[in-house]
Amino acid sequence: MDFRPDEMTVAFADEARAFLDEHVLPAEPVLAKQIEDGPGDWTVRPVVRALQETAQERGLWNLFLPPGPHGYGGGLSNLRYAPVAELTGRSPRLAPAAMNCAAPDTGNMELLAHFGTAEQREAWLEPLLEARLRSAFCMTEPGTASSDASQIGTRIHRDGGEWVVNGRKWFATGAMNPDCKLLIVMGKTDPNGPRHRQQSMLLVPRDTPGVHIIRPLTVFGYDDRDHGGHAEILFEDVRVPAANLLGGEGDGFAIAQARLGPGRIHHCMRALGMAERALDLMRGRANDRVAFGGPLVRQGVVREWAADARVEIEALRLLVLKTAWLMDTAGNRAAMKEIQAIKVAVPRAVQRILDHAIQLFGAAGLTGDHPLAEMFAAARSLRLADGPDEVHAAALGKTELALEPLEGVAR
Amino acid sequence: MDFRPDEMTVAFADEARAFLDEHVLPAEPVLAKQIEDGPGDWTVRPVVRALQETAQERGLWNLFLPPGPHGYGGGLSNLRYAPVAELTGRSPRLAPAAMNCAAPDTGNMELLAHFGTAEQREAWLEPLLEARLRSAFCMTEPGTASSDASQIGTRIHRDGGEWVVNGRKWFATGAMNPDCKLLIVMGKTDPNGPRHRQQSMLLVPRDTPGVHIIRPLTVFGYDDRDHGGHAEILFEDVRVPAANLLGGEGDGFAIAQARLGPGRIHHCMRALGMAERALDLMRGRANDRVAFGGPLVRQGVVREWAADARVEIEALRLLVLKTAWLMDTAGNRAAMKEIQAIKVAVPRAVQRILDHAIQLFGAAGLTGDHPLAEMFAAARSLRLADGPDEVHAAALGKTELALEPLEGVAR
Amino acid sequence: MDFRPDEMTVAFADEARAFLDEHVLPAEPVLAKQIEDGPGDWTVRPVVRALQETAQERGLWNLFLPPGPHGYGGGLSNLRYAPVAELTGRSPRLAPAAMNCAAPDTGNMELLAHFGTAEQREAWLEPLLEARLRSAFCMTEPGTASSDASQIGTRIHRDGGEWVVNGRKWFATGAMNPDCKLLIVMGKTDPNGPRHRQQSMLLVPRDTPGVHIIRPLTVFGYDDRDHGGHAEILFEDVRVPAANLLGGEGDGFAIAQARLGPGRIHHCMRALGMAERALDLMRGRANDRVAFGGPLVRQGVVREWAADARVEIEALRLLVLKTAWLMDTAGNRAAMKEIQAIKVAVPRAVQRILDHAIQLFGAAGLTGDHPLAEMFAAARSLRLADGPDEVHAAALGKTELALEPLEGVAR
Amino acid sequence: MDFRPDEMTVAFADEARAFLDEHVLPAEPVLAKQIEDGPGDWTVRPVVRALQETAQERGLWNLFLPPGPHGYGGGLSNLRYAPVAELTGRSPRLAPAAMNCAAPDTGNMELLAHFGTAEQREAWLEPLLEARLRSAFCMTEPGTASSDASQIGTRIHRDGGEWVVNGRKWFATGAMNPDCKLLIVMGKTDPNGPRHRQQSMLLVPRDTPGVHIIRPLTVFGYDDRDHGGHAEILFEDVRVPAANLLGGEGDGFAIAQARLGPGRIHHCMRALGMAERALDLMRGRANDRVAFGGPLVRQGVVREWAADARVEIEALRLLVLKTAWLMDTAGNRAAMKEIQAIKVAVPRAVQRILDHAIQLFGAAGLTGDHPLAEMFAAARSLRLADGPDEVHAAALGKTELALEPLEGVAR
Repeated sequence: MDFRPDEMTVAFADEARAFLDEHVLPAEPVLAKQIEDGPGDWTVRPVVRALQETAQERGLWNLFLPPGPHGYGGGLSNLRYAPVAELTGRSPRLAPAAMNCAAPDTGNMELLAHFGTAEQREAWLEPLLEARLRSAFCMTEPGTASSDASQIGTRIHRDGGEWVVNGRKWFATGAMNPDCKLLIVMGKTDPNGPRHRQQSMLLVPRDTPGVHIIRPLTVFGYDDRDHGGHAEILFEDVRVPAANLLGGEGDGFAIAQARLGPGRIHHCMRALGMAERALDLMRGRANDRVAFGGPLVRQGVVREWAADARVEIEALRLLVLKTAWLMDTAGNRAAMKEIQAIKVAVPRAVQRILDHAIQLFGAAGLTGDHPLAEMFAAARSLRLADGPDEVHAAALGKTELALEPLEGVAR
Repeated sequence: MDFRPDEMTVAFADEARAFLDEHVLPAEPVLAKQIEDGPGDWTVRPVVRALQETAQERGLWNLFLPPGPHGYGGGLSNLRYAPVAELTGRSPRLAPAAMNCAAPDTGNMELLAHFGTAEQREAWLEPLLEARLRSAFCMTEPGTASSDASQIGTRIHRDGGEWVVNGRKWFATGAMNPDCKLLIVMGKTDPNGPRHRQQSMLLVPRDTPGVHIIRPLTVFGYDDRDHGGHAEILFEDVRVPAANLLGGEGDGFAIAQARLGPGRIHHCMRALGMAERALDLMRGRANDRVAFGGPLVRQGVVREWAADARVEIEALRLLVLKTAWLMDTAGNRAAMKEIQAIKVAVPRAVQRILDHAIQLFGAAGLTGDHPLAEMFAAARSLRLADGPDEVHAAALGKTELALEPLEGVAR
Repeated sequence: MDFRPDEMTVAFADEARAFLDEHVLPAEPVLAKQIEDGPGDWTVRPVVRALQETAQERGLWNLFLPPGPHGYGGGLSNLRYAPVAELTGRSPRLAPAAMNCAAPDTGNMELLAHFGTAEQREAWLEPLLEARLRSAFCMTEPGTASSDASQIGTRIHRDGGEWVVNGRKWFATGAMNPDCKLLIVMGKTDPNGPRHRQQSMLLVPRDTPGVHIIRPLTVFGYDDRDHGGHAEILFEDVRVPAANLLGGEGDGFAIAQARLGPGRIHHCMRALGMAERALDLMRGRANDRVAFGGPLVRQGVVREWAADARVEIEALRLLVLKTAWLMDTAGNRAAMKEIQAIKVAVPRAVQRILDHAIQLFGAAGLTGDHPLAEMFAAARSLRLADGPDEVHAAALGKTELALEPLEGVAR
Repeated sequence: MDFRPDEMTVAFADEARAFLDEHVLPAEPVLAKQIEDGPGDWTVRPVVRALQETAQERGLWNLFLPPGPHGYGGGLSNLRYAPVAELTGRSPRLAPAAMNCAAPDTGNMELLAHFGTAEQREAWLEPLLEARLRSAFCMTEPGTASSDASQIGTRIHRDGGEWVVNGRKWFATGAMNPDCKLLIVMGKTDPNGPRHRQQSMLLVPRDTPGVHIIRPLTVFGYDDRDHGGHAEILFEDVRVPAANLLGGEGDGFAIAQARLGPGRIHHCMRALGMAERALDLMRGRANDRVAFGGPLVRQGVVREWAADARVEIEALRLLVLKTAWLMDTAGNRAAMKEIQAIKVAVPRAVQRILDHAIQLFGAAGLTGDHPLAEMFAAARSLRLADGPDEVHAAALGKTELALEPLEGVAR
């Protein structure tokens, strides 16, 4: 066992840190201004475009995508990507997008790389890898418990040479953005099939007739318009060519699972970056702010918050790194239990750390003057993204308490 | 000891509950629509005006203001008001405003009733009691730790027959509303006086030259525009007549303390109402929503959340009621320790309950489709309003651990 | 609603406090010495006998037993008893026994008073009321989940004029004491009857042939020998006269439920007394102990512990008092939900408070030099006594989330 | 970075696991019987002696002591020792002693190896390495806050060719055992010297005149007599030769610090083993125990406990391993922050896991029938051993919030 990161890891992390400090953090107020100046605007802002150019020049581009048989990628292994992803979490509105490593495009690119046909990859993957367009993933539905895939209400049926989609999706992140050209939609092609073979995945261009963008949703008051927001979308007799199926008929559940593993670990990496950003901010505040005769850093409760934060970050970062290593060396499926573990533990811990940071900042922590409240909303949302914590914890607990190892899970 | 509420309490609570069920809750979507239709509008919305008329007719008006020597009031004792205030918390954007029982106007009316001259009462208190205008309280400052009153940076100096104010305030709730005509401003008239005699309180009409409304602040992503938002205000050589001083010179700290006691208990009462609303919503969701083969109510974790919520609400409600009783029978000062206790405990518990409710609702809980996320932001803010939890807890702990009873505090 | 205790309550509480301060607390080291000097001894110690005489003289005797139709009692209502019971919790090894208010005798006396025949009352209740003998309650079994009464394995069958008992019980508190003459045993008389009519309750003299006291059990290393310990008992063809049935055949479950309500609230009252004792001890320690340049009371974390403890005690005490009032005015059954609430909440809170108190005392807190570790073990046990927390919380949560009020439970 | 343990690590862990399963776990009831049969006995029991022989044969001996310049050792690096130490924690009363890896002897052997003269090593280290005698460490004092070394009250003064010790120590673990021949005593040789140069460390044979073993202490109700208990010791004019000083005069604080680093990580490793044992027990219980119609494993709350336990163990184990790696590769001092982190986090987590396990076992979990209650007492004690959590957390928080890196600590 060796806890020292290799040279390549250090080199990319150093580059990412320099990019963050020199370009991204200074761009935060610029983005705020551009958002303020265009209240009706859901597109990628100019400051992001500019950062993307710089990132590409510095080789900080598409690093999330490990090299694969598909010939795309050339990014980093999960283990090497982790420190970079964590650094992007320190400026979550800018850094991931700047480096073309932002959800949900990352997961969508992975799907296209792994399951797409040559035509699909050319049409969608290549422009996505160049950030020429954006994409959304349409899985969650307003009327059903999305963590239970058997409940999906959207129907996809075959009509001659076309697939026809009917259903309602929401929390399609990014889909308010007019640059979002592709929707990957999960629906049932065989509602009477075996539980995990009923679903299929379809590529639906956003401008197809019958795609109705109903409204943007808010998350704790935020519309996240700089990321294309979160859309509710109605699919009404939406027709796409038969060739738009991603993978085979009935592969939808398996594809979704394949997407969620890396998606979850990326979320966790970035969440740890948010926690580190919070600690940086706490450090500044605790030394600058004076109350009752001294700086806040002298208060025992403040030191306790900082200690708890540090311990949780250190322990959970190691668990994330080990999970990444397992995914790299034994495959995503072998890391199932670890992925569940970090999915449950990291967002909870980061929410708690952000809560303390807000408390230290007082009312200022609630406002847009600091990134804390917005990061809190993001961390809180992660406890529901891809299924609520409790579903994952219950599955993990069931595995843990099984007398015989469950299939595919090492105890 | 007798835990049965008296007839008057029951009668007012019944009336308030009927008003809530028949008028307020049905008006929630109307308010949402009126807000959506007027994106630049910070005024009191028509639906609130209509509710106010009904509330007045039903005798549900100004109930927060106990009868006093000033001849105003005619409201309820704290103990009798508590159930009514809790009920208003179930619809926090509408019910308090509908019954003219919304902060910060309530606290401002109390100050005017207790400390105002006849002229001040006529000019400001009477129209406030009739909801003809709104007011804001300007205490918190962006640059200093407001829980430490000795740090207040705003200066008020005398110049002939006028007071001149210079300083910067923020979190002046309601002050974005053009109907907000009165600002009550705390500043230092004697920066070198004894620590708690340096401050004075001044009545400043919002349209006085030199009053610059700088910007609205957000709390999480909410601008609370239906309540007049939260303003940052710059006071630049603002001149008001000498008669505008509230109370005497140097009374500012004492007046602020007098205001905060009732303010805190009202916040706690309404917060419990938010928690009850959350439990109502959880009840519906847990029975309606099906996942993994049954309604969510069958999940042990969901039952645990409901049980914890019920226990916390019951215990803390009793503590709030006892505090109200103490304030009524022994005075606000004698209830200091209890006020600290509920100030610390209630918002934390309500935040936790709302967090669980959001989790039960899944992604929907984060949106504006349910009041949970917005109530969460409100409860979270309460942990900072009138000073962070930790300041009050530390003071309470110090009292508790003192070998000799501290002055004015019964062990 | 009125939070002022009546004169009778105050008078008894004052008397109990004086007895505690003058007699009980000074007797604690005497008891410790007497226990140390008689390592094999499970009987009531002389110091307890002496305190019992004093308590009787002062009218502090059997106060737990409200007057009833049976003609026994003359004690206090639940509401008036609460402050007295809480005070006894401050010295849990001595005060309850000194005032003949110690479990399990209290519950057993209640059963005999309510369900016993004249002969049973004369034979057992009267000597118990005079503390001439002790009793144990044999319900929990080592092999089954005792919170699920349908699982009880002990069998009671009729053989002519006798009942014959076979089975194994444990955690029969007090039964190691040779002065414990009576065992009240729950077993199934009709294993095929309706779920809650299978059980009956039998009076079994401890010296009946076939009663084998197997061994004492420990609780966190404590054998609680001053209270008669906790026994495992084997009943092997134990024969008692038919007249020894308590209540009717099949009444066992109902009788057990009747016993548990008051038992639970008494436990909660005493547990709050343990918490107050812990706070007293913390107060002393925090002022006396110096580390890193000042007394511990200056540490923010210590103040936070004290504040949290005070808030939890105050809120939960009120909930206990309200429960007592409900039991007095509406009956034990109407207070079911409140009893569940305090059963769940009080021991958890007291455990947490004791944990903090131990932490403040350092290693000394773990030893027998202070009552903290022993009280911790007692509080921890309460989370399992009469069924684990989780069973009660789940039942409470189920009630809370029910769309229609469940039978016999007011929402 | 590589999370795969090397071959040597795997080999030793496999051997230790086999020894545990084949010899140690089956010996647990034997030890219980031997303790029960010798109530006045504080010595190492025969079953431990027998296990020690087997362990030596299998090469599982003194593995805690890394090879050093002193020529002793030949054990494992911290990183390789970690899995072995964790395994010993699964049977904490037997396994560490069986493998001669039990505190406090391990720490004492380290001190003798690093700081002892050739004569001291021959006299004490060699027999300790062969388990021919036992030792105790006398640092904690009853009257002072031991986490603040400047407060140490024991005095050591020079009188001709001798050192004379006066003072009172307690929590001298192991010192009740007559086989404990050596006491390492910390006292002040220069009370007026610089704060961290006042203390020296002295080797005092337990049978030296003036050494009074006052009494055994209990931890919760346990006297830990199989480990030699925890003694209070009075040193009254105790005279030892000048050559008995360990290290130089004034080196006491530095030596103590050197001892505590490895001691703390060993405690954490074993504590994780206790948590794994608890999970094993929970697994059995959750499947075997039936309540309310099914095995407990079907209860959501039970699964949640298991999931939380697994996540905490995995994350904290990685943090412990990283700390071990840092100690091996960069030195104990460079790992200071990580040692603080695990010292704070591991015992808290393990206490929580054990608390849940006890709850799952019901009343049985409190007794001596399962190791849970005793392990709980051990884990709880760890939160105080070598200073309370809060002292370490405050130091860690201070470091974390420092604007400039503190001396010797990498951020």
